[in-house]
Amino acid sequence: PDAEFFAGIPNICLKKDAAVDNSLVYKHYDAKKVVMGKTMEEWLRFSVCFWHTFRGTGADPFGFPTLFRPWDDGSDSMANAKRRLRAAFEFFTKLGDVAPEGATLAESNKNLDEITDLALELQKKTGVKLLWATCNLFANSRYMNGAGSNPNADILAYAAAQVKKGLEVAKKLGAENFVFWGGREGYHTILNTNVLTELTNMASFFKMAAAYKKKIGFTGPLLIEPKPKEPSKHQYDYDAMTVIGFLKHFGLENDYKLNIEPNHTTLAGHSYEHDIVMSSAFGMLGSIDSNTGSPDLGWDTDQFPMDVKNATMVMKTVLEQNGIQPGGLNFDCKVRRESTDLKDMFISHIGAMDTFARGLEIAAKILTDGVIPRQVKERYSSYDTGVGQKINKVQTSFEELEEYIMKKGEPEVASGRQEHYESMLNSYM
Amino acid sequence: PDAEFFAGIPNICLKKDAAVDNSLVYKHYDAKKVVMGKTMEEWLRFSVCFWHTFRGTGADPFGFPTLFRPWDDGSDSMANAKRRLRAAFEFFTKLGDVAPEGATLAESNKNLDEITDLALELQKKTGVKLLWATCNLFANSRYMNGAGSNPNADILAYAAAQVKKGLEVAKKLGAENFVFWGGREGYHTILNTNVLTELTNMASFFKMAAAYKKKIGFTGPLLIEPKPKEPSKHQYDYDAMTVIGFLKHFGLENDYKLNIEPNHTTLAGHSYEHDIVMSSAFGMLGSIDSNTGSPDLGWDTDQFPMDVKNATMVMKTVLEQNGIQPGGLNFDCKVRRESTDLKDMFISHIGAMDTFARGLEIAAKILTDGVIPRQVKERYSSYDTGVGQKINKVQTSFEELEEYIMKKGEPEVASGRQEHYESMLNSYM
Amino acid sequence: PDAEFFAGIPNICLKKDAAVDNSLVYKHYDAKKVVMGKTMEEWLRFSVCFWHTFRGTGADPFGFPTLFRPWDDGSDSMANAKRRLRAAFEFFTKLGDVAPEGATLAESNKNLDEITDLALELQKKTGVKLLWATCNLFANSRYMNGAGSNPNADILAYAAAQVKKGLEVAKKLGAENFVFWGGREGYHTILNTNVLTELTNMASFFKMAAAYKKKIGFTGPLLIEPKPKEPSKHQYDYDAMTVIGFLKHFGLENDYKLNIEPNHTTLAGHSYEHDIVMSSAFGMLGSIDSNTGSPDLGWDTDQFPMDVKNATMVMKTVLEQNGIQPGGLNFDCKVRRESTDLKDMFISHIGAMDTFARGLEIAAKILTDGVIPRQVKERYSSYDTGVGQKINKVQTSFEELEEYIMKKGEPEVASGRQEHYESMLNSYM
Amino acid sequence: PDAEFFAGIPNICLKKDAAVDNSLVYKHYDAKKVVMGKTMEEWLRFSVCFWHTFRGTGADPFGFPTLFRPWDDGSDSMANAKRRLRAAFEFFTKLGDVAPEGATLAESNKNLDEITDLALELQKKTGVKLLWATCNLFANSRYMNGAGSNPNADILAYAAAQVKKGLEVAKKLGAENFVFWGGREGYHTILNTNVLTELTNMASFFKMAAAYKKKIGFTGPLLIEPKPKEPSKHQYDYDAMTVIGFLKHFGLENDYKLNIEPNHTTLAGHSYEHDIVMSSAFGMLGSIDSNTGSPDLGWDTDQFPMDVKNATMVMKTVLEQNGIQPGGLNFDCKVRRESTDLKDMFISHIGAMDTFARGLEIAAKILTDGVIPRQVKERYSSYDTGVGQKINKVQTSFEELEEYIMKKGEPEVASGRQEHYESMLNSYM
Repeated sequence: PDAEFFAGIPNICLKKDAAVDNSLVYKHYDAKKVVMGKTMEEWLRFSVCFWHTFRGTGADPFGFPTLFRPWDDGSDSMANAKRRLRAAFEFFTKLGDVAPEGATLAESNKNLDEITDLALELQKKTGVKLLWATCNLFANSRYMNGAGSNPNADILAYAAAQVKKGLEVAKKLGAENFVFWGGREGYHTILNTNVLTELTNMASFFKMAAAYKKKIGFTGPLLIEPKPKEPSKHQYDYDAMTVIGFLKHFGLENDYKLNIEPNHTTLAGHSYEHDIVMSSAFGMLGSIDSNTGSPDLGWDTDQFPMDVKNATMVMKTVLEQNGIQPGGLNFDCKVRRESTDLKDMFISHIGAMDTFARGLEIAAKILTDGVIPRQVKERYSSYDTGVGQKINKVQTSFEELEEYIMKKGEPEVASGRQEHYESMLNSYM
Repeated sequence: PDAEFFAGIPNICLKKDAAVDNSLVYKHYDAKKVVMGKTMEEWLRFSVCFWHTFRGTGADPFGFPTLFRPWDDGSDSMANAKRRLRAAFEFFTKLGDVAPEGATLAESNKNLDEITDLALELQKKTGVKLLWATCNLFANSRYMNGAGSNPNADILAYAAAQVKKGLEVAKKLGAENFVFWGGREGYHTILNTNVLTELTNMASFFKMAAAYKKKIGFTGPLLIEPKPKEPSKHQYDYDAMTVIGFLKHFGLENDYKLNIEPNHTTLAGHSYEHDIVMSSAFGMLGSIDSNTGSPDLGWDTDQFPMDVKNATMVMKTVLEQNGIQPGGLNFDCKVRRESTDLKDMFISHIGAMDTFARGLEIAAKILTDGVIPRQVKERYSSYDTGVGQKINKVQTSFEELEEYIMKKGEPEVASGRQEHYESMLNSYM
Repeated sequence: PDAEFFAGIPNICLKKDAAVDNSLVYKHYDAKKVVMGKTMEEWLRFSVCFWHTFRGTGADPFGFPTLFRPWDDGSDSMANAKRRLRAAFEFFTKLGDVAPEGATLAESNKNLDEITDLALELQKKTGVKLLWATCNLFANSRYMNGAGSNPNADILAYAAAQVKKGLEVAKKLGAENFVFWGGREGYHTILNTNVLTELTNMASFFKMAAAYKKKIGFTGPLLIEPKPKEPSKHQYDYDAMTVIGFLKHFGLENDYKLNIEPNHTTLAGHSYEHDIVMSSAFGMLGSIDSNTGSPDLGWDTDQFPMDVKNATMVMKTVLEQNGIQPGGLNFDCKVRRESTDLKDMFISHIGAMDTFARGLEIAAKILTDGVIPRQVKERYSSYDTGVGQKINKVQTSFEELEEYIMKKGEPEVASGRQEHYESMLNSYM
Repeated sequence: PDAEFFAGIPNICLKKDAAVDNSLVYKHYDAKKVVMGKTMEEWLRFSVCFWHTFRGTGADPFGFPTLFRPWDDGSDSMANAKRRLRAAFEFFTKLGDVAPEGATLAESNKNLDEITDLALELQKKTGVKLLWATCNLFANSRYMNGAGSNPNADILAYAAAQVKKGLEVAKKLGAENFVFWGGREGYHTILNTNVLTELTNMASFFKMAAAYKKKIGFTGPLLIEPKPKEPSKHQYDYDAMTVIGFLKHFGLENDYKLNIEPNHTTLAGHSYEHDIVMSSAFGMLGSIDSNTGSPDLGWDTDQFPMDVKNATMVMKTVLEQNGIQPGGLNFDCKVRRESTDLKDMFISHIGAMDTFARGLEIAAKILTDGVIPRQVKERYSSYDTGVGQKINKVQTSFEELEEYIMKKGEPEVASGRQEHYESMLNSYM
């Protein structure tokens, strides 16, 4: 049970001046380094996706598995599940400060108890904590037409029983959050669908989940993760604003926050950081799945984030809202199915963690420098006093504003200076 | 002043058996024909876009004007404006039952009074009514960074004065609705933008508009028209659910409804009828701009809708919510810039009206036949009684549902039968 | 061995006036009906995709199988493979005039011989012919980085051996074509890729295939099927013109034609019929995979084609090039994973066949009527004589044209009349 | 005539340690600095787009002009044209080493002679050279249905006369290249289009252009610039491979090369650097328009390139093919219409030049370091000897390869190591 699964790979350490082709060290991520009053690990709160990293096989719609792990015999046995879990904890420990994100690991309640007992034991032994728990309400064929929005009430009831157990497990393992992803909550054709009925039932489902969470004393936030499409043609949690509209319509906005994955944001037609910014502006940003996609592809590639500029924009928002705890930065990523070496598992996480460490440092520099924030603040300064302040506080009227502008005349127009801002950002990179 | 602008073109009439290349008659639209208890014109409430049809020049970002109209000398003179208006009313009259949609036609208040006097006179004379009025808060350079969301309070004040006048004109002309389209309400780069400030100010702007509307006794609905992008990189009114979320967040949901343009819906990544269906489900569908785009292009082509299947899906929703009055079906369309003949203006509207007339008849057949609706109803029947009904009415809990499903066991899974529904729809076409 | 696998389902027959919800009869497809001098079955040459229809499980990247077929025990045994084949031939026979498209059914040569013996026997017994054969050079993990373009020469050699056998099987079974689909021929990141080396090797691969085909006397055309992306980020056979450019660069244009799937065409950013039209214009259209996608989704949904207008545009091109034999119309489609009933397999094919039968009849009406073709011909008539004819035949020069236009003056500009053409098309629908 | 148009702005100089908000100095671009044996200016060969930068008004399809330049009175007078030209040369001189790209500046031949006389004089005086000339064959209404592919032979003749003059001007001004962009060469609807006729005529047009170029002794390359769509729905020069296929089909491949704009490449569904890499691999890369777009938008935003990683990928290809001369890096970019300050014109070009200077230095580091190139070379090493070499040189057969692989057995599969390559690239950034 204490065998080493990643034999040739040491604990990953910081080595700033490592050679270019040494991709098995951190060149930027320094867990204990203090940035704007907190350590890197406090700001970044990295988490590894158990599902993708330890259950991913490399299969895709056109291809068979390519990833064969020495500890995994491909079976559904408890022994295999436990071996996989031990490998995972070795992986977490070697990477350093990462918390797993955990899909519940088995389907039957009995097995679930046994495997979560082991998880709990490993957590205690290693000090690794669970960022969030979730339930898989999309893979089983019974959910092919949705869980909370299923046309069949029995299937919704089944999902309810499953989430009930999931919340209990979350409490048992001390999960800091509980996430819902509704990949099958949506429709394939409007022809066979009653949208209002489906949304109403799904809202009931969420209300019952919030009630049960309170009942058992699970204190972590409940999070909904938007995604526009895939696997469904249209998903009810299309993007941040769609979820916010849904929550507010059904009176759920105090019980739920959002888990934003920028890879889903770009699939919804927005720029990488858009839903991070929007949900933060509405006070609804709870946690982040930090994977990326290819902007020229129309599906979820779940790649490791390697773009420092994107990471900077995300971390700038996180810094501005003073952190994301109890949420975190989960790598809901998959190694490419062509990245078949065991060490690719490490290289990919290290590369992404370094990317976000650089993003954090650059964002902190931007904010402490204050040049960009000051120029933005100045841009809106007309709303700080006078008529602008009245507008902002809804203390004026069309009549008063007409009178004001009649006197004032044609307003001055100011350059938006986009290229100047882009150049300033580049100066920090 | 009574000269005929469209000399060779007679009043358009119904001729079901006209030759294929006779595109100057209605082959389907029969204004007075009764369908499901109302006439076609009552269901369809067609409207012509004054702006595109009478001010469009065919210019595009890469090309100069191609459309030269005999009544338009290209000047900004009042005489030209009036001639244009008379041409428009001849056009409305020859087409038959269409109401114009009107952007306010001039910028200075003085000219606006004079031109709306003429419009009023022509309306009375012809019996043509105004479907909706709007203000252009995007073309002038002062609005390049938004109107209600502008970083400069003076520009918001200017827009307020303009909408104030616009609402007065709407009342004067008996407009049945007032529409806001926020093409510049959004951002180009998040780097220079404070999203929350902009949204808060824009909400104030909408609150003041609603207050002024009530004050002057304008009774038509206020409508917001979603569009995801273009001209801005990101627009705050991305799609139906985004607008609904915004309205509910700022407490505006009782004062505003939505004007849906499926061409914008497809740009937001949804299928043609999606936002029609969504806004109707949320009780927020106020009116429709029925133009279409090319799904392989990423900008707003504003083509005339010529797809009968799309029209059927839209009209099915309109029938299901028992009509869209006081809203209507506005053709916010442009003839292609290569469609340079005067008669192309008629051909395009006639083709689109026939398309929607066919859509209406097919949708009515689907609903009166009842086969598809019954099969959909049956699909959700488990929510009509027992545990399903309790879920739908939020009268149960996770504990009760767990107990229920433990007894019941694995739920039965039913085929979604998408291809069967698609075949049935084809049977009606 | 002669058991009935589709017990409740009779041979599908024509019943024009069947009820709307009877989706198990042809309402339009009438195999022996003569249209423009050939029977429907001669024009349409329908084919069923063995792979999708008899091996599809409904699994997707987010979900487990949903389609459980009574004849399939999920094993890899020969008995199971044979039962599946018998079920398939019952399906082909009940549908009527369809030819299977066959991926080679097993991997080891021994099994392949045995299973193709059975296939041959069933073909003879039922009269069913094989439209085309292919090799699966993408599913096995060895092909994860390509087959003909693999960085490892041994893998290319392996693929060569596999195609060699595939061509032999094609000859044995009397396949009318042999198709290459290069889902892994492409790249995921340019960083690790030498494009020129990969293309050069892939061209060698195709040259050797053409040589071996001639050697063994297989006479069917070799076809390449373009697809822009998925599973690879970028595929070398992006679209029709990309393949044509590749073939011409490497001198392969006389040995290969194209198998066009409009679902791939739309993924490449073109309209549904575009690559059909382009490859036909270049004399390279060999066969058609007639499935469709959802224009708002960015991956290959392989839906059954149910849009009569799209089918009309495709069949118009097929009629104009006087048929597609020895190619055909293959339904490379999957029932939705939610379409779990056995009869959904029939309903989907019937619906698609009726759609193309309608498309054929409408296209034939358009061509025999001659209104649209005449108007198009007239549009280009200036190239039939005089200076236009000289241009078309490259018998003039810039100097001569300058002189001509100096005399002639500003050319007349004619309306493109897009809406008129769209209306005419609607008149035929 | 010698007045200073950009009064407050000095010649732009290098200042590596300038403050973040000083966006009016080069922080990276150092014209005379030697990189891999050539100076930065020799590698980069920057060029400014005269059309966008000196004729752009900020108008867009939804908005009026926003950019008002002090030297431009908006008229079509020669005096205005000359003032604009003088302002441009002041701009070129202040930026430093940039060559203009010039659309021919007027329509009538007489004016063209006069304005090109002045251009020639200013070129001599300042030492500024012309990177390329072109003709505008898309803006005038006569070209609304194409120039070389127009259905009307007279319009093709008109375009021929215009290009004839354009080539003469190119020779007169010593342009180093001549570029064709076919924005209207394509179709809006296939219904009114004969694709083969249009392509055949367009090929004739290009043949005549090549002939006339030789006749007058203009020695610069003729270049075609691919773009997939916009303004047309579909353009015949969709992307690099489409153009290459067209050129090879009509025997034009020796007379034309490609001018690649990555903004168009991304609109065609490829990654930023894709068409640069492809056209270079085929020996057809002639010049580069280096602007960028927003991946979440579906039209050509012509933004200034500010992404160092993209610039690195482009410059790596340029270095690998040992430069792009006589081509160059043209900024075919527009300041945002909200960037209304005169100095935004400078800031945008400076920011983009610095971006490419950084890209050049990083690419040079990657190549001289040799780590990445060596690892890629190693990846393909099996084609350097033995059976791989035979494949690469087309000296083997399917029979030989089958025999080889039978002996060898299942090939070894190697990790593609995408994340490792991405991490290495990040190490260089």
